This record gives sequence, structure tokens and C-alpha cells, in this order.
Amino acid sequence: MPSMGLFTCLPDLSDPYNHLSESILRTMANKYVYLFGTRKSEGDKEMKNLLGGKGANLAEMARLGLPVPAGFTLTTEVCTHYYDHKKTYPRELSAQVDKAISEVEKKMGAKFGDPKNPLLLSVRSGARVSMPGMMETVLNLGLNDEIVAGLIKKSGDERFCYDVYRRFVQMYGDVVMGLRPKDKEIDPFEHLLEKKKEKHGVEIDSDLPATALKELVAEFKAVIKKRLKRSFPEDPKEQLYGSIGAVFSSWQGDRAIRYREIESIPHNWGTAVNVQSMVYGNMGENCATGVAFTRDPSTGENKLYGEFLVNAQGEDVVAGIRTPEPIIKMKRILPDAYADFIKVCGQLEKHYKDMQDMEFTIQQERLWMLQTRSGKRTAAAAVKIAVDMANEKLITRKQAIMRVDPADLDQLLHPTFDASQKTAAIGKGLPASPGAASGKVVFSAEEAEAQAAQGEPVILVRIETSPEDIGGMHAAQGILTARGGMTSHAAVVARGMGKCCVAGCGDVVIDYSKNLFKAGGKTVKKGDWVSIDGSSGEVMLGQTPTKEAKFSQEFGTLMQWADKSRKLKVRTNADTPHDSDVARRFGAEGIGLCRTEHMFFEGDRIVAVREMILADDEKGRKKALAKLKPIQRKDFEGIFKAMNGLPVTIRLLDPPLHEFVPHEAAQQKEMAKQLKLPVAVIKAKVDSLHEFNPMLGHRGCRLGITYPEIYQMQVEAIFEATINAGKKKIKALPEIMIPLVGTTREFDDLKAMIDRVAKEISAKKKTKLSYQVGTMIEIPRAALIADQIAESAQFFSFGTNDLTQLTFGYSRDDSGTFLPEYVDKGILPEDPFQSLDQEGVGQLVRLGTERGRATRKNLKVGICGEHGGDPASVHFCHQIGLNYVSCSPYRVPIARLAAAQAALAK
Amino acid sequence: MPSMGLFTCLPDLSDPYNHLSESILRTMANKYVYLFGTRKSEGDKEMKNLLGGKGANLAEMARLGLPVPAGFTLTTEVCTHYYDHKKTYPRELSAQVDKAISEVEKKMGAKFGDPKNPLLLSVRSGARVSMPGMMETVLNLGLNDEIVAGLIKKSGDERFCYDVYRRFVQMYGDVVMGLRPKDKEIDPFEHLLEKKKEKHGVEIDSDLPATALKELVAEFKAVIKKRLKRSFPEDPKEQLYGSIGAVFSSWQGDRAIRYREIESIPHNWGTAVNVQSMVYGNMGENCATGVAFTRDPSTGENKLYGEFLVNAQGEDVVAGIRTPEPIIKMKRILPDAYADFIKVCGQLEKHYKDMQDMEFTIQQERLWMLQTRSGKRTAAAAVKIAVDMANEKLITRKQAIMRVDPADLDQLLHPTFDASQKTAAIGKGLPASPGAASGKVVFSAEEAEAQAAQGEPVILVRIETSPEDIGGMHAAQGILTARGGMTSHAAVVARGMGKCCVAGCGDVVIDYSKNLFKAGGKTVKKGDWVSIDGSSGEVMLGQTPTKEAKFSQEFGTLMQWADKSRKLKVRTNADTPHDSDVARRFGAEGIGLCRTEHMFFEGDRIVAVREMILADDEKGRKKALAKLKPIQRKDFEGIFKAMNGLPVTIRLLDPPLHEFVPHEAAQQKEMAKQLKLPVAVIKAKVDSLHEFNPMLGHRGCRLGITYPEIYQMQVEAIFEATINAGKKKIKALPEIMIPLVGTTREFDDLKAMIDRVAKEISAKKKTKLSYQVGTMIEIPRAALIADQIAESAQFFSFGTNDLTQLTFGYSRDDSGTFLPEYVDKGILPEDPFQSLDQEGVGQLVRLGTERGRATRKNLKVGICGEHGGDPASVHFCHQIGLNYVSCSPYRVPIARLAAAQAALAK
Repeated sequence: MPSMGLFTCLPDLSDPYNHLSESILRTMANKYVYLFGTRKSEGDKEMKNLLGGKGANLAEMARLGLPVPAGFTLTTEVCTHYYDHKKTYPRELSAQVDKAISEVEKKMGAKFGDPKNPLLLSVRSGARVSMPGMMETVLNLGLNDEIVAGLIKKSGDERFCYDVYRRFVQMYGDVVMGLRPKDKEIDPFEHLLEKKKEKHGVEIDSDLPATALKELVAEFKAVIKKRLKRSFPEDPKEQLYGSIGAVFSSWQGDRAIRYREIESIPHNWGTAVNVQSMVYGNMGENCATGVAFTRDPSTGENKLYGEFLVNAQGEDVVAGIRTPEPIIKMKRILPDAYADFIKVCGQLEKHYKDMQDMEFTIQQERLWMLQTRSGKRTAAAAVKIAVDMANEKLITRKQAIMRVDPADLDQLLHPTFDASQKTAAIGKGLPASPGAASGKVVFSAEEAEAQAAQGEPVILVRIETSPEDIGGMHAAQGILTARGGMTSHAAVVARGMGKCCVAGCGDVVIDYSKNLFKAGGKTVKKGDWVSIDGSSGEVMLGQTPTKEAKFSQEFGTLMQWADKSRKLKVRTNADTPHDSDVARRFGAEGIGLCRTEHMFFEGDRIVAVREMILADDEKGRKKALAKLKPIQRKDFEGIFKAMNGLPVTIRLLDPPLHEFVPHEAAQQKEMAKQLKLPVAVIKAKVDSLHEFNPMLGHRGCRLGITYPEIYQMQVEAIFEATINAGKKKIKALPEIMIPLVGTTREFDDLKAMIDRVAKEISAKKKTKLSYQVGTMIEIPRAALIADQIAESAQFFSFGTNDLTQLTFGYSRDDSGTFLPEYVDKGILPEDPFQSLDQEGVGQLVRLGTERGRATRKNLKVGICGEHGGDPASVHFCHQIGLNYVSCSPYRVPIARLAAAQAALAK
Repeated sequence: MPSMGLFTCLPDLSDPYNHLSESILRTMANKYVYLFGTRKSEGDKEMKNLLGGKGANLAEMARLGLPVPAGFTLTTEVCTHYYDHKKTYPRELSAQVDKAISEVEKKMGAKFGDPKNPLLLSVRSGARVSMPGMMETVLNLGLNDEIVAGLIKKSGDERFCYDVYRRFVQMYGDVVMGLRPKDKEIDPFEHLLEKKKEKHGVEIDSDLPATALKELVAEFKAVIKKRLKRSFPEDPKEQLYGSIGAVFSSWQGDRAIRYREIESIPHNWGTAVNVQSMVYGNMGENCATGVAFTRDPSTGENKLYGEFLVNAQGEDVVAGIRTPEPIIKMKRILPDAYADFIKVCGQLEKHYKDMQDMEFTIQQERLWMLQTRSGKRTAAAAVKIAVDMANEKLITRKQAIMRVDPADLDQLLHPTFDASQKTAAIGKGLPASPGAASGKVVFSAEEAEAQAAQGEPVILVRIETSPEDIGGMHAAQGILTARGGMTSHAAVVARGMGKCCVAGCGDVVIDYSKNLFKAGGKTVKKGDWVSIDGSSGEVMLGQTPTKEAKFSQEFGTLMQWADKSRKLKVRTNADTPHDSDVARRFGAEGIGLCRTEHMFFEGDRIVAVREMILADDEKGRKKALAKLKPIQRKDFEGIFKAMNGLPVTIRLLDPPLHEFVPHEAAQQKEMAKQLKLPVAVIKAKVDSLHEFNPMLGHRGCRLGITYPEIYQMQVEAIFEATINAGKKKIKALPEIMIPLVGTTREFDDLKAMIDRVAKEISAKKKTKLSYQVGTMIEIPRAALIADQIAESAQFFSFGTNDLTQLTFGYSRDDSGTFLPEYVDKGILPEDPFQSLDQEGVGQLVRLGTERGRATRKNLKVGICGEHGGDPASVHFCHQIGLNYVSCSPYRVPIARLAAAQAALAK
């Protein structure tokens, strides 16, 4: 293979480190072009906002003395100028580009547009954050008929040179001139190429002879002229500006806009453009190209991981025509380049202090680095890499904590499907509660319980669930609903149970009467196997094997480090001893929300509850409540035991009474039989309990005020359980929480009742009782008068679910009709039921906290909505100085890590 | 008749005016007793808080030189001390009382407890505000067997003296010693009295001879001894303190407590006690007693109005045994006393500058004033008196404005029943919309329209109304509903129409299937006559004549004066040209809320609306909307005409779509026929529109965002109507209001649409369009981010109905289950849907206004909820600097007066 002067001149690495800080450079009026890999590199890795990620890292690598083909970056400011000024460039740009080209020419020992010694360039996009494949690239720029002739003369490889030329014309025609085929159109260039291969009887492009390639160039130009009535530009400068313009234009291409919307990337950031000398991995067997990670991005193991292809260009790796080889094989084939690369890898990881994802090309045994960036990784890898690097002293423990996205931990805490065995989805709903489950379809809670009792794994499929379904949900492997959002009953309860749930899957059309559902053109009958993925929302036919979650040692270590850093306590929302146990194992520091109503449904209890509701007077209600008290007491004893020594916040009855009565005729008949009452009486009662807006109805402390005997029974059960626990050496720390308070008198009256009951039981049992009484702040008015409520409330817990409903005026059960469209259109940045709306709802949380503490300096304040497990919301809670967040058991580790990151953030 | 030295000594009016200001007196340590009518009067009319209303006015009258029997007042502080210190008196009290008695003795020329020349006293309560009949009184105090003998000797009238003694023992036994009979017990004293009358064969008490009365005294004392094992106290001092204690105790009596709860009088105010020399109107034919008003309290006419009885005590007037005579007759019977009284009346009215309600006694031709206070009056009288007094220069015009309670004006604006013809109520509901109406019962809106079309007056009786009933409500004379509160659909719409409505009448049990309702044990069938009183909530059988409202000249004058004083503008909530006309006649200065959805129901419109809802796509919806546009345009043209030159705020469609579709099978069938679609399609659509909490659902601007074509049609109709109005020389000032905004983007996106449509129509019609775009602030979040919304919103209108629902988390349709109990128990001072909750909801209104104006200094801000017609809420709106309130047409005068009072209040 002949020596090719053009491609072999070494970068001048002797240039002294000549670093101007970004701020100095920025104050130099209107600097739009930054050099890299030339005598000096004008950028560095901190300048991503101005130079884009790729440009900043190319400059940084060059600064480190690594082999980077020389080039320059047009800043993101050029892009914003371009769009602010009717797609024109700043006045100063042209001169700065000329000067930069001449620097690159000096470095590379070749001249752009000079037929005798031509410099070829690539033009690539590079935004602040990676937007892979969303914008345009033009390679091999700077060729025309005259220059290619000179290039052939200089390199002596006619086939290679015509191949480069042919690729350039094709790419330029596609990308810059706009001949890229749409949808089902035939690509005119590919069409000509295919015809040429047929004619020459060859299968792959690289088998075409030089003459054929030369013909193709002419044919490509002709088709451009014919289709566009414009000629392919022969002037290299015109080619350069055409390519730069194409990249800037692609920033506002449909794909790019859509991507930014999905990823919440501001449209006004703009992209930088990198113009760089070409290097070639396809000049022969001593050439190669590849991508690699400094560690295994799947497991986090500390060993080089990657692939390469000999005699290939980058696009060949992507195209998948040839199968790349594992990187380790490069050691044997190109030992020197491999050694260089290993050295570079070490250098980069040490410099960036993070796992790097790199692109490289080897041109005639010489290594060129084309890109480096922090590599994407699985949650497991993220945890392992962070902990390993801290142990290697590459980063601090605090940095390790910041390295893992708390939301990603979800992957680690639930069973998952074996990806290789997953079948095509027949429907997709909301990923309401993560995890994976397979089971036989059942359509009612009773059926679920019955089948589960016989050891059958079942998936409970319902249009939507209601509190009556609790037993069946518990018995099922997973829950699939056709309606309801991320905070629907099914979603909230499933997350609480750590049970996999796909909610609001509109693809699923259920026919209860025929015991079947249809989805994706398939009919699924009762007893058929289905699999649901609560992390992706997918519903699949058949049984798919799952992998159980296993916690790595590194996970435990990271959690320990996180706990040392955080200030915010993390409690859990748990209603049963089982959930309390799970949460405690996940590190919960108490219960922030124990919903007592869930205890009202199981088994015979619901009969007593209904008896109470049907009673005509206080006496009748008290009689029914007397049956419930021992059961509630036992529930509390179990929870106190699980949370021995930790605080347990118990919310008194919250939902409206109609949630406890059946609304369907058959069940009403059943209830009439159980209670020995005429059906008409049942029906009349159920009707009288109907509310137009139950969310705003007769519930929470409003029940406590109008039917004081209900709360009194619950409070007696709590205090008796506290005393019974004490007898067994269990330290119970009850915190009684009054829900839905909107006025001071509601709280004061009910607190007086609680204190009175405590006094009575204390006297009767001759035991001192230690407890607190506080309230949920979930009504906007309560936040507004928090200063007054704190006069007697000993703690606040923000119920951010209801507070969000009321502050926005959204019903979480109904908002599915417009909320997805709102998020889609960017009217809301996120679903406010998933991530706390800091601007609106957050104002009330902040204000309520401030006012509450203005009255009671050491007021304990937490939140117990669904937001307690959302990292951004946890961050906000830390910022405004809350004492704790409370979330479902499986989100406790997420909250712990998020709390640590919040504490370390400043 | 013998001269009775005891009762004839004149008060010493020569005593120079010796006035110590209250503050000086208060700084004198622990002064608990204030003299009046003695050498000096220590109190005056400004000291009501300390001396109670009665005590302060007695002192004031004495100061004026009017004949007031001498006495002294124990302050309200004695009462509070009494309750704060286990029912004991302050140390200093006894000496102060002794000293006061001796001053009274000097003045009256008699001695308390002196058998030779005894002074008799009365002990009466007297709180800051009048609590008529709620507390105790003891008269004729200071008698025992020895003293009565002395009294007889001195007066020479044995029968009179024993009658006084007998009355005293009876009253003391009842009130102080506690022998007052409960419920159905026999009164032991009355029993003995009856037996005595039987024995003597007389019919009335006063015919009993002295001996019989003497016997009765002994028998009374015996029954006391027998029943209570205690003796009647013979010691006058003991009698005095017993009586004082009884008055203080009665402050905490059940009746008094209940009364204070109803009237919102604080329990800790306490009562004063007045101890006063007795005078007697029952000593012969030259004696009398009476009550009088300086003007006619019913009409306001400026002439003395009152009644008197010759030879009688005050209690005889109240007891109703004899019929009192009109006061004018006194002129002939007791000419000197009458002349004195007329003089006193003039003096008092001039002094108090208000109509006085007085009690007097004439003892042997001498006039004694026992009480004066501002008299209660009808609304009509209040208006006339205020205007007359201003014209008489007795008060200023501003004072006249302050004299009339705006809420009372309601009486003047609606028809009323002739009180004399009203029959007993068979049920009582909420006084939801004032006025009186009689008509034949109908149970459906269709029936109401059909009957009304034939000239039959009907009362529409529904369990509850829905927007579908608008036509029938309009056709009916009045509306009666069994369910729903003061802001239920029926109530709000009826008030808007100025139509009489009784809502939420739980006594009424409707059976639609049998076309009847039951109430108060009666069954009322379709076609039966009923009468409803929307001002009292009463429902009566049969036809009751009504009186039409007539506005007096004084009413007009007062309104003119009010308009000159107020700063707040008053607009109206009106949806039709008719309502707009009415409101303008009541003085509305524009429309603050025109609800466009009400226009969607009438006649054929609903068919087009349903066609739109049923359409599968935007194209189908647009087709249906095209039918609606000309109708809406015509509606707006009519309203613009009625409001020529005044601003008209038009709210775009607000309710969820399911309000426009029928929910009952029969109507769905009808709709299917009309739209030529299968019933199943209708049913499926209706079901899909169902919401769990429609109040928090897919409505307001959420519809505008998801179905932009609906708002676009409405906006086109508005602008086209504006241009058409202009062609007819009508000045239309449309203010387009976007409802239910919670985020800035909702507003901005829709405003952009409106501006675009305006531009298009403006260009097409070659006419400049002048309009404003603003929003309703009714979502708490909107108030919190008002600064951002005001960036583009040109006005705010607080929708305080929905804002109250969301700030409290109350559904106004459901809150009937607990809200009445809340108000009853004092958890809320008032129904927050009737009077704005200033503490909570008001905070958001204030904050939203402040933030909005921080961005846009001259932001126009108003309210348009039901509160716009509530005086206290209007006052609040003035205080926080709103520009206007908007209320239903019939409340406009109330708001005008309330606004004037608010402006004058400081």
C-alpha cells in the first residue's frame, strides 16, 4: 500500500498548552469559531454549552495530547444567530472560518481545495446533549473532478479515491441538496448503485472497480441535475457552507424537534457544528474503525468492552453488513494501535473520572480518536461503576452518590422479564407499578383469590379497580386495567404492594359478560396466560420467564453512603404488617402514611362496616363499630411490631362511605342477605350516599365531625394496641393523623376527642400513653391557614395527591381525557401527579411549611403523596426543609438516594 | 288616690353635668358600678360594651335630663369575673353596691330595707346587644312582711301593696329560687292563684281583695319552703344579691347560649345588670305603661307609632290579656304626660339621630322613661327613614347610606306574599332565590313549558335541576327542589333569572313515576296549587296572593347617593338580552359574566350541540358548530344591544360535555332518533363522557385546548356580532374570558387563537375590532401564578364559586351532607358559598390581585361568583381594591349599596 502523505502528517503535539479560559474567550467580541487539534485547542470540556458535547470533548482530547484529527467548531451561538436572523450567518463568520481552515491546513499539511494536496473535511452536528441520529452529517467534503484526480495522483489508489468521491456526492445529494427519499420512494443513488453492481455482477459495493465508481459519480451528478435543475457544486467552499447550513437546518427538522420535546431539551439551545479533517479506517487491512466503553456498560465490570471492524468506515459498523469483532481481538491484529488505544482509554477515564464511550479510527496503523463521552449504562452498571470508582479513589463517595439516577433503581428492585424471551406486545398501557408478572387471566377479585388459593398464578384484569378489589389484587401476580392513570386506585395500591401493574391500557377491551378481553387483534379468555411488564406498560400473550431482583453488594454500599449524606428522613406508606416489613428491609425509617380504610375491606370486616353504614342512629353505628375495634386493634399491633421503635403515622378514616357499599344489583342483593335487610333499604342507602364529586364530598375529617363514633373507635384501637405492644416490649410510637382538615375548628375538635380518649384509656389501663396528633395538609385552605392549625397540630404531612387535585382542579381519576395531551403539547412539563408541580402546588407546600413553623418552630413536616418516591420531588422537599418524605415500600431506596443527592447538590 | 311619697320624689335634675369620660373612669382601678339618674350619671351611650345597651341608654337619658328612675349598672366585667372565678364577685363589688344604693336612696328619698320608707328595686339584664327575653328579670325587690306593713302604712293602699308583694314572691320563687315549671309541669304559684280566684269567685287577678293577696304571699312562701327545703329570704340585701346572681346565671342559660350562637354573639361578652328604682303604671287610672316608636317602623312614615295601657304594668302589655290602645289616644286620657312624652320623643330622636323604640311608665300622671334604643324596622321603612332624616338634616347623606342593611333590600326587589293570607307551611327548604310564587305543580321542564305556553302559572318541582331544565325553569313561576344547596344549579339559575326558588327542601319527597310529592303529611299531585316563598324557604298548599315589588322614590334617592359614594363598579351576571335589560334597569354597569353554555340548550340548539359531541372527528364537529354559530352570534347581538356602550364579559364554554347529553334511556332514544344514530352509539358516547368528579374534569379551557374548534366558533360569533352591532350604531365592548385557566400556556395558546381569529375577521370585514382577553381565576393554582398569567391576560375575574369549591375541597352539589352541620356547630361561621371566606379563599383573591397587578399595574380585576351580591363579600372586594363585582340582576342594588358602605366605612 502506497504511502499517503495527505493522511499521515502527525498533529503537532509539541504545541505548548495554550489555554484561554472560556470567559476570556467569550469577552473577545463575537468569537464564533474554536480550533481543536491545531497548534492550540481553543475549547475544553467545560464549554459544552457553547461548543456542544462533541466539540468540547474533541478539544479536551486534543489538549490532553491525544491523537485528534485537526478541525474547528462553529459555536451554538452561530445556530441561534442563524435562526434569529432569517437563516443568515454573523458577519464575522466567514473570515473566522477561513482563518481556522488555514490553521487546520497547516496542521494537517494539506490544503482545502488544492488539487495538488487536498484536505478533506467532515461536517458534524454536536448539541449540548447527545441527540443520536437526529441531525445531519456530511463526510469527505472538498472533492470535485479536478481534485479527485490530484488525490489519485498523490495517493496512487484510484479505486479508494473514487469510492470516497462517490460516497461524498451521494451524501451531499441526499443531505444538503435534499434528494433523500421519503417513505416508500426509491433512492435514486441506491438505484444507480444497484444497477451498477448488477452490471458488474458483484454483490458488495467494495467489489466495484474504480471505473465503475467513476461512472457512478457522473451518473449521480446527472440525476441531481435532472431532478433538482441545479448542479452539484464543484466549489469546495460552497460544499462546506452547504454542509454547515444543512446541519443547522436539521436542528429544526421534524425528527429533532420531536426528540427534544420527548427529552425536554429546549429548542433555543441550538447545535454547534464540527468541521474536522477526514481520517480513514477503510484504506486497507492495516486500517480499522470501532467503538468501545472503558467498562462493561451492562454489568459495570471494570474491563474494556467494545467492537471493531478491520478496513471499514464508521458507517459500516452501524449498517450491520459485517459483524464487528470483540475489541480484544484487535490486540492480535493491530497490536501497536491496540496498545495506544488501551493507553488512551486509561488516560480518558482518569481524566473524565467516568466510564467513557469512545469512537476511534485506525488509519494505516495509526490511532485517531473521533469522539469520547460519558457512556450510557444500566442501573446495575451505574451502581457498580460508581462504587468501584470511589473504591479506586478515582472519585469521592459523594461523587459516587451523584452518579446514579435514583429513578433507575426501580430496575433493580423488581423482577424483570428475560429480554431475550419477551414476545411482541398486544397492547401498551401506563407503567403504573414496576416489575414483571405472568399469570392466568381472571376478571374478578373473587376469582383471583380463589385461583391463587389453589396455587395458580393469576393476572387480575379489570376495567378499573375499586377498594372492594383489594383482596384480589393482593392475591394476583399483577394487575391490568383498561382505564385510569398513574395515580388511579389500581396504580396506587399496586405500588404500595410492590405489585406489578399496567394501568389505563386503552388497547384492552374487556367484556365481563363473556369473560374475555380483546387487544391487538387477539382475543384472550379467562384462564389464558398473559404477561405484563409494569416498567414498560407492555401486555404480552403467554408465559414469559422473569428474573428475580437481586441486590448487589455495591447497591448496599451505595445506600449506606447515601444514608450518611442525607438530611431528609425516608418513611413508607404501608397499611399492613407485611408491607411494613418489606419497607423496613428497604430502609424505611417509620411509616408516614398508614391508611386505615384498607383494613376495612378484608374478609368479614366489610360486613361490619356495612352494618355501621346502614345503622339508623349512633347506637346502631356504635354496635357495628364495636365489632370492628378488636380487628383494627390487631392490625395496629402487627404494624407496631414491624415498626418497633419507629414512628407510625396512622391516618383516620378518609374515603366517603359510599366506597364501602356495593353499587351493582347482584352485590346489593348479597349484602341484603348478609345484613338481613330488604334490598330496597340497601339500594336507598347506596343511592343516598351517591355524590356528584366524591373527591370533594363527605369524607376525611368531615366524617369524623359528623359521625364522631367512627374516629373514636379507631383512636381507641390505636391506643389499646399501643398499650398491648408495650406489654410485649414493643415500642409503639403512634402519630395520629387527621385527614382533610380545612379549618382550625375541625382539627381542634377532633384533637380534643383524641386527647380525651387517651386520658380515659390511660386511666383505665393505668399506663402512660405517648403519642402525637397532627394533620394532613391536602386542602389548599389548610396550607393558607397553616399558622393557625399549627397552634395545636404537632405535625404536618402534606398529602400532595389531593393537594395536586385541588390546586389544579384535576380529578386524578378523570384527567386521562386531557392530561396526556397537555403533557404532549407542553402545556405542562410533566404529569403533576407523578412529579410535584413545584411552581404551583409546591408554593403551597412551601408556604404551609413556613407558616406552620412560624407558629411552632420545630414542627415536624413531611409529605406522604405519591411524590415521596419521585426524585425531583424529593429534591424539592429537601430544599424547602421538610423533615421526611414517605413513599411506597419499593420506592424507599429511590427516595434515600434522591435525598442524599439533594443534600449534596449544594 | 293617696299621695305616695315613695314614688313621687323627683329626680334631682339640678345636678350639674358631671361627666367623666369612659377612659378616665376605666383607669380608676376596678370600678364595677355606674350610677344613673342620681346626682350624677356615670355612664353614657358610648359605653355599651361595659354597661350593656340598656344601662348605657338609661345613663344617657338621665344625662339628657329625662325622667329616669334612679339606679345603677353592674358592668359586664362583673359578669366575666363571675364566670372566670367560679361564680364569685370581685372583692370591691359589695362596697360599691352599698355606696350606689345610698346614692339612689338619696335621690329617691327612700331607704332600701327601711320599713318606714322603703325603696323598691328592679334587677334587669342588659347585654351589649339586645337579647330580648333570653335573660332574667326580678321586679319589686326589697319587700318582706315587716316592710310591706310599713309600705301600706305609708301609701295607704293595702291591696296594691300586697299585690306588689305577691308578684315579687312569685317572681323570686320562679326566677331566683328555681321553681319555674318545666314543660308540662304545673306552676305551683299559678295553681294557688287559680284556686284563690275560684274561692273568691273572681275572673281576673286584680279583682282579688287585699286579704286574699296577703294569704297568697304566705301560701307562696310555704310552697317554696316545702318544695325547696329553703325559706324565702326575708333580708332585702339577700334578695338583691340573689337576683343579681340569677341574671348573671341566665347569661349561660340554654336559651341564651343558643340565641348567641344563632346571632353570632360572642359568649365572652357577658351581660351587665341594671338595678333601678321601681315605678308603677298600675297604681290607678292616672297611671299607664306603653311602648312607642318615634316613626312608623313598618312604613317609615314620620309620625309617632305605639300603644299603651291605662293602669297596667309592662308585663300586662306583653301578656296580651288586655288589648292596648293606639298611643294617640293617650293625648285625651293623660294630656300632660302625653305632652311630656312627645317632647321626650323629639329630644331622643334628635339626640340619637335615629328612630327610637321606647318603653315608658306613667305613675300618677308623671312620665318615667324606662328604655330607649334604635328601633327595628322593615327594609322599606329603613330606606324611607334614612332618606327622610337626611333631608331633615338630622343626619348626613353618607350616614343615610350607612343606615340601610343592603341584604334587606332583597325584600323590596321581589314580589312578596300578603302576610295575612299565608297558610301553614308543609315544608321548609333553603331560601335560594327570593320572591313569592303560586302555581300548579309540574314535575318536568317539558311539562312546565307546555303548561306555561297555555297561560297556566306553574311551579316546577324537581329532585334537582340540570342544565336541560333551563327552558322549563324559565317558563315556571317558581322552582322547588328536594336536593341541592344555596349554590346548586337551581339556586344559581333562579337567582340569575330573578325567579323565586326554594331549594334543597328535604321535607319534599318526590315520586316522578306517580306524578306526586309528599310533604308534611300531605300528598300533592300534578296540577295541584302550591305557593313557595323564596325569601323564607316555605312551601305552602294552595294559591296565596302576592304583592308586586314597587320602588319608592326614597329608594331611588338612596341609590343615587350610594352611587356617588362608591368606588367599586357593579356589573351583572346575565346570559340573555332580557336579563341584561333587567340588570341595566337595576343599575348594572356592564356584564361581568355571560355564560355562553346556557345558550346551548334552548330549542333546536341542543340538537346541534349533541351532533357536535357525537361527531367522530374535527370535521364532523366543525359541521355541527357551523349550525350553532349564527345562533350564538344572534344571542350576542341581543346582549350587546341591551348593554350598548357598557362592557360585556363573555365566558367561553365551561361545563363538561356530558352536561349536554341525556342520561336517561328514554331521552337517549329520542336523541338517537333525532340524530339518526343507533341508541347504542348514543349510550356508548354518554358513558364515555362519564366522570367521577365532573367538577374537576374535562371542562373550561381544557375543552378549548383539546377541541379548539368549539372556542373558535364562539370567538367568531362574538366578533361577527360586534361588527354587526357596530353597523347598527350599537357600541359593543366585548371582553372575552377564558375559564378554568391553571397554567400560563393554557391562556397563552387560547389568547393566540383569539387574536388570530380577530385579525382574520377584521381583515375580512375591513373593520377594526376592539376587545380584551382575560381569564377567570377560579383554580387555586391560577391565583398562585397570577403574576405570570397577567403577562398576557388583560383582566382577571375571580370565579369565587369554583375557587371556594377548590380551596375548601367542597363540592357545592354535595356539601349539603355536612355543611349545615358545620355552620350549626360553629366550625364555619357561615356557608362559604354564600359569603366569601375571607380568611382562606379571600387570601387567594387578595394574593392573585396583588400578583397580577405587580405584573400589569392597571390590571382590571373583578369577581363574578355568587359572592358579588353578598354585602360582606362586596366590602372585602372594596377593601382589597378590586375594580368591580358582578352579581345576578336582582342583587345589583344590594351590591351598589354595599359598595357605597364599604367606601364610606373608613
